[in-house]
Amino acid sequence: MGIIVQKYGGSSVADIERIKDVAKRIVKTKNQGNSVVVVVSALGDTTDNLLEMAYKMTSLPPERELDMLLATGEQVSVALLSMAIHSLGHEAISFTGQQVGIVTDAVHTKAKILDIHSERILSAIEEGKIVIVAGFQGVTGDNDITTLGRGGSDTTAVALAAKLKADICEIYTDVDGVYTADPHIAPSASKIAEISFDEMLEMAATGAKVLQARSVEFGRNHGVAIHVRSSFSDEPGTLIEEAGKIMEKAIISGVTHDVDEAKITILGVPDRPGIAAKVFRTLADANVNVDMIIQNVSEKGCADISFTVVKDDLDRAKDVVDKITVELKARGSTCDEGIAKISLIGAGMKTHPGVAADMFSVLAENNINIEMISTSSIKISCVISEKDVESAVKALHEKFGLGSNKG
Amino acid sequence: MGIIVQKYGGSSVADIERIKDVAKRIVKTKNQGNSVVVVVSALGDTTDNLLEMAYKMTSLPPERELDMLLATGEQVSVALLSMAIHSLGHEAISFTGQQVGIVTDAVHTKAKILDIHSERILSAIEEGKIVIVAGFQGVTGDNDITTLGRGGSDTTAVALAAKLKADICEIYTDVDGVYTADPHIAPSASKIAEISFDEMLEMAATGAKVLQARSVEFGRNHGVAIHVRSSFSDEPGTLIEEAGKIMEKAIISGVTHDVDEAKITILGVPDRPGIAAKVFRTLADANVNVDMIIQNVSEKGCADISFTVVKDDLDRAKDVVDKITVELKARGSTCDEGIAKISLIGAGMKTHPGVAADMFSVLAENNINIEMISTSSIKISCVISEKDVESAVKALHEKFGLGSNKG
Repeated sequence: MGIIVQKYGGSSVADIERIKDVAKRIVKTKNQGNSVVVVVSALGDTTDNLLEMAYKMTSLPPERELDMLLATGEQVSVALLSMAIHSLGHEAISFTGQQVGIVTDAVHTKAKILDIHSERILSAIEEGKIVIVAGFQGVTGDNDITTLGRGGSDTTAVALAAKLKADICEIYTDVDGVYTADPHIAPSASKIAEISFDEMLEMAATGAKVLQARSVEFGRNHGVAIHVRSSFSDEPGTLIEEAGKIMEKAIISGVTHDVDEAKITILGVPDRPGIAAKVFRTLADANVNVDMIIQNVSEKGCADISFTVVKDDLDRAKDVVDKITVELKARGSTCDEGIAKISLIGAGMKTHPGVAADMFSVLAENNINIEMISTSSIKISCVISEKDVESAVKALHEKFGLGSNKG
Repeated sequence: MGIIVQKYGGSSVADIERIKDVAKRIVKTKNQGNSVVVVVSALGDTTDNLLEMAYKMTSLPPERELDMLLATGEQVSVALLSMAIHSLGHEAISFTGQQVGIVTDAVHTKAKILDIHSERILSAIEEGKIVIVAGFQGVTGDNDITTLGRGGSDTTAVALAAKLKADICEIYTDVDGVYTADPHIAPSASKIAEISFDEMLEMAATGAKVLQARSVEFGRNHGVAIHVRSSFSDEPGTLIEEAGKIMEKAIISGVTHDVDEAKITILGVPDRPGIAAKVFRTLADANVNVDMIIQNVSEKGCADISFTVVKDDLDRAKDVVDKITVELKARGSTCDEGIAKISLIGAGMKTHPGVAADMFSVLAENNINIEMISTSSIKISCVISEKDVESAVKALHEKFGLGSNKG
């Protein structure tokens, strides 16, 4: 009997009625002859409410205690979901991260999973029980409670699926899959039936919000196929799997956009070896995540260095840049929060060299100025002005034939 | 450095401000040179709210899952309280029942503590930290979460104090101690400064609500002095300790009353050996807690058996009685919910034989009919009509000189 891991996010278990609906779906999967292991997030806004209480208590809550607090959210969910399944006449058993031995490092609020002791889950499965596991949480070797940070419950689900050698990891959410573009911007956007791990990673990294890159990477590294689908319908969603298993490959899988980044430029930096290393080492030490980087040499042996950071890191980044500017005797720095990153993702690019040129042409035809460019073998990203993001998404989506009428 | 165990109930940590007040009190105790171990209940109405959610999910939630759910309440409290202490510049560390190794049996929702592994607490104390422990919860040998039932957090506190050989176990609550009578009924009621475990046990068993009998019994069996006091003032409360340590003994410590019981009478039961055993064995098997019992033989070799049960158990008790009445060919049964139990508690009764007679006289003078009587060496209880309870409490309180003017 195969094992299916299902993960339900906070919006899927936002209230009593939705939890009951989720219970029905789980029982249905079980009745189809599967062993079912379920990972659940906290109910609706629970995590936000707990955080609010913590910050009312102190502006700087110790992270160990934050984890102690936040972990209760998922514990409530698993208990209630287990009760809902019992009321349908099926045996279910709930577990905390500690109880199923999801062992993590001790980096509180963003711990990484080191190992999973699956014995307890496997013996519950053998007893015919539906297993309900609290997502987002683990335990250190010293028996302290940890949480896994953003997208943590997805990671719990994929990691469990890997450990249990599950047939599939189903991620249930409030959208019905991954789309070729944001349907709010491009109404003709269509659901992607299948996509490779690498493409999905690029989609996540460039703005697709449906899955965190972290769980996709976990799936890729452990060969766990992930099915992203809606908890409100029975339609199949998007299957994320190894490239080799995908039958029909599109040249371009999707257009993504991201308006959560800002661009910083350090002007007139002396152009000598080691300067870029110095800049980005200092930013990394300040825990600033840098995304795109470009450097161009201007006249008089000076260079301008531009890079993008997520807006959450912007204040920290500016502090660092102010110090570096003085230290390097650079001419100054600028910061632009009004930018957007727009990206084309597609494994087919590897064998279709004209894609970048086509992309630049489309943007030019729409009078959209390109401020930065970054490419990988399956992705092209351009930084443009935030005001142009809608027209850029629409134009690219149409140009590359991604609409729902594409067949 | 001595260890003080402090327990704060739900009303003491009902909201953010109260938790901050509790944190200040804890820090003050620490600054006075004590090692402090704190036991906390769930915030305000949390437990009730969680129960409500559970019963919306199913009318019969599995008890293991109920415990999983309820234990989150105290986990939230310990994390928030630990944060509040940190914000005052002191080191605190919170623990779940599982983390401090409060090992219980597997009787979910009313587990009994079997052992406490105190190593983790002791090493935190050695590091100078204030230790915050989730009350009301434990863990089975199989690592399942349990809760200790009614008054569970008090029991956690007293058990920890016993294990840690604490100097004292302070139970903070929303009243400032144990009173000679309910001040709402007898306005002259005074706070009892010291009382023996045995007397406190009788007080709790006969209606005093400030402490559950269970934790008092634990304190008595392990010699842990318990100080019941208010979390809203610095006044000393009531010290519960071994009788031998109490300097000045009163003949009567207090008057208690209880309107939560009902009286059932089985009429015309054949008067032969084994009948009472049969009746009360059957009730015990149905998990009905019987309090007072009287049996009187009437004419024609038949007896009437009356007993009281808490009203929560009344429906179950009636079912049992209906069956027994048929089985024993008794004449019938009656049930009276309009009763009250009124009790006099005092270790001095042992050496003052006239107390019972005085009590009956006072009730008679006030035209109060006595329906049942039960005595122990330090207690006399009478069942009377519920409508007479106020006048009975007032009259007895005055007759035995328990008012605040007693010195």
